Amino acid sequence: MRLSRYFLPVLKENPAEAQIVSHRYMLRAGMIKQAAAGIYSWLPLGYRVLKRIEAIVHEEQQRAGHIPMLMPTLQPAELWKESGRYDAYGPEMLRIRDRHDRELVYGPTNEEMITDIFRSHVNSYRDLPLTLYHIQWKFRDEIRPRFGVMRGREFYMKDGYNFDIDRESAIHAYNRHMVSYLRTYERMGLKAIPMRAASGPIGGDNTHEFLVLAETGESEVFYDNAILDLEFGERHVNYDDREEVEAIVRQWTTPYARTDETHDEAEFAKVPEARRARSRAIEVGQIFYFGTKYSEPMNATVVNENGERVPVHMGSHGIGVSRLVGAIIEASHDDRGIIWPEGVTPFHVGIVNLRQGDGAADAACDAIYAALVARGLEPLYDDTEERAGAKFATMDLIGLPWRITVGPRG
Amino acid sequence: MRLSRYFLPVLKENPAEAQIVSHRYMLRAGMIKQAAAGIYSWLPLGYRVLKRIEAIVHEEQQRAGHIPMLMPTLQPAELWKESGRYDAYGPEMLRIRDRHDRELVYGPTNEEMITDIFRSHVNSYRDLPLTLYHIQWKFRDEIRPRFGVMRGREFYMKDGYNFDIDRESAIHAYNRHMVSYLRTYERMGLKAIPMRAASGPIGGDNTHEFLVLAETGESEVFYDNAILDLEFGERHVNYDDREEVEAIVRQWTTPYARTDETHDEAEFAKVPEARRARSRAIEVGQIFYFGTKYSEPMNATVVNENGERVPVHMGSHGIGVSRLVGAIIEASHDDRGIIWPEGVTPFHVGIVNLRQGDGAADAACDAIYAALVARGLEPLYDDTEERAGAKFATMDLIGLPWRITVGPRG
Repeated sequence: MRLSRYFLPVLKENPAEAQIVSHRYMLRAGMIKQAAAGIYSWLPLGYRVLKRIEAIVHEEQQRAGHIPMLMPTLQPAELWKESGRYDAYGPEMLRIRDRHDRELVYGPTNEEMITDIFRSHVNSYRDLPLTLYHIQWKFRDEIRPRFGVMRGREFYMKDGYNFDIDRESAIHAYNRHMVSYLRTYERMGLKAIPMRAASGPIGGDNTHEFLVLAETGESEVFYDNAILDLEFGERHVNYDDREEVEAIVRQWTTPYARTDETHDEAEFAKVPEARRARSRAIEVGQIFYFGTKYSEPMNATVVNENGERVPVHMGSHGIGVSRLVGAIIEASHDDRGIIWPEGVTPFHVGIVNLRQGDGAADAACDAIYAALVARGLEPLYDDTEERAGAKFATMDLIGLPWRITVGPRG
Repeated sequence: MRLSRYFLPVLKENPAEAQIVSHRYMLRAGMIKQAAAGIYSWLPLGYRVLKRIEAIVHEEQQRAGHIPMLMPTLQPAELWKESGRYDAYGPEMLRIRDRHDRELVYGPTNEEMITDIFRSHVNSYRDLPLTLYHIQWKFRDEIRPRFGVMRGREFYMKDGYNFDIDRESAIHAYNRHMVSYLRTYERMGLKAIPMRAASGPIGGDNTHEFLVLAETGESEVFYDNAILDLEFGERHVNYDDREEVEAIVRQWTTPYARTDETHDEAEFAKVPEARRARSRAIEVGQIFYFGTKYSEPMNATVVNENGERVPVHMGSHGIGVSRLVGAIIEASHDDRGIIWPEGVTPFHVGIVNLRQGDGAADAACDAIYAALVARGLEPLYDDTEERAGAKFATMDLIGLPWRITVGPRG
């Protein structure tokens, strides 16, 4: 992309409304623009990062055998009344009446809707296991939206739902999600730590949150810093192998790691003192096993091997796709701007032409640009008439991992 | 994809509520499930087609130099009051109040929001021309949603907006959209004809609709059938070349082609009788040049070469992405099911194993499957225990362009 033909409205001043660094840099780098409180437009640069993150989530979900689909943003209120959550969810759920005065809700999550799809089409244990997921815009009417995309109202989330014949199979699905999530974050350059969590309105007693360490995080976390040495790298995982997947989960959940909600001082004291760490962190995902909480009231049953009708065991699993853009910036930046991990960078490399209009400099930049594109890379070429200082400041701000500068010997 | 691990809930019976073939086949092939009137979930097979169509739209837009971004589904009502459309739009626009009693609308289109983004960031003619677009869910509260995804309420649309210094540049943007749209439809196996149209609530006097011929279409159209011979094939188009782009537009808009709204019997009579055709057709897109209709009331101005502040000339341009899934089926099917054009097929090839469980048949299927995947193709392998008749019926219904059948000599 040539910058002269792009739309990258960078701001020179720090916007007053931004309290945290990701919000500030996303506004300054022309990544987002607020449309209403907690509702954002994703300008071209921000959109590219969002799509990179979305693509990684899709790849890792499908690698784990999960099937993509798409549910709408609006849902009939009846489904929520059936599960009993319509009243339970409270004013955070946006309730709407259409022109025929029928009640809709802007879905904050999709347990009811996916359970309805499941019960309409699946009848036999032979069709299990099944995990369906989608990545769609959600809405939660936060009373005080803040921190840019970190605590917005309209947000982009991957939510997945497993349907299994029994608890044991559903726990395998839970473990599969944990492993695939850890890989997902790792590919984005993030160290996300699974921590035992509280379940909130989704329900169930088996749940982990994934937290990314960052000074500006909203959560306080306590962990054994041995966990920071764990990583996947190129390791192959066979997601059908229950034992293999469970072993990875055990490896990642054995070191102490808790948020303040679940923190236990006595347990923490057993960690060798030199490894006891506390930090701020940002939640970027959560997984739940909740058994038959939705399948029983909503009659989502299958016929088992003995010919009996039994409710399916379910779980749900979410990754905050739009929030991750902010979380990555919180975890990776310096005083001059963002520092994108290669996995999610909006462009692979920046080209700065210090002598725009000079025949030799333009020709060199054009040749470099063409060579990079021919190799399947996406360069951002600053071919504008700006002076060098401004070009460097913009490149620092948007933080591409590689930069090529073309100019006279100096 | 192995069918035994997929979610393809085909129906054997024709659903009573479906009046047209695309709706019927989309339900039967397990592509969609209604969530509420005119609101659908896209089940895995339907989702794949939707994504194929979306990818083609993105590619062709970017080839024409247009820049992708993403606006939210919810918009503040204030923007619509500023343009004067809040009252004009009527009950088709879904109006919402949040927990702080602020008015939001679920965007049916985005002229106001994009104009607001433009005026916040662009100041000089040097930053023009600029065309921004997004593909996002929209909502129009149709009083009588019907025909499945063809006339739904929540629908997926590409909408693009050009900002230009004068009428002439904006007409070039209009022409660029027409050419890129024609290529887009052609890649999907559709012959879409541009027809002079009426502008409706978007405004402006220069507008074309794109119509796909189909017996079940809602529009009646009249055309010179010489237009059916036009196509692009591999032709390269330089979208920066105004004359080249204009010449293509002239070629495609010179033959008579009108909907009944703009039909002119006297003009039609001038077409040689043997070439005069009338048909039913489906609208799959529309482009508008409307000049300063939004930029004047909303103060979207730039400083021109002479240092004067002038309102920008704009147009907007839409493709019905979710509607196209239905339109393609209406245009391409037979009595047994859908016939996907290769450009949008959900899987490239089907593999039917007639002797599932037989060592030789399974090994042959596995080898074929692996070979296809290694070539970058996406096969759908029916490895279920169903009998042959049912397997063939499903393959006929979902209509992949190629099929490989493995079984004993018979």
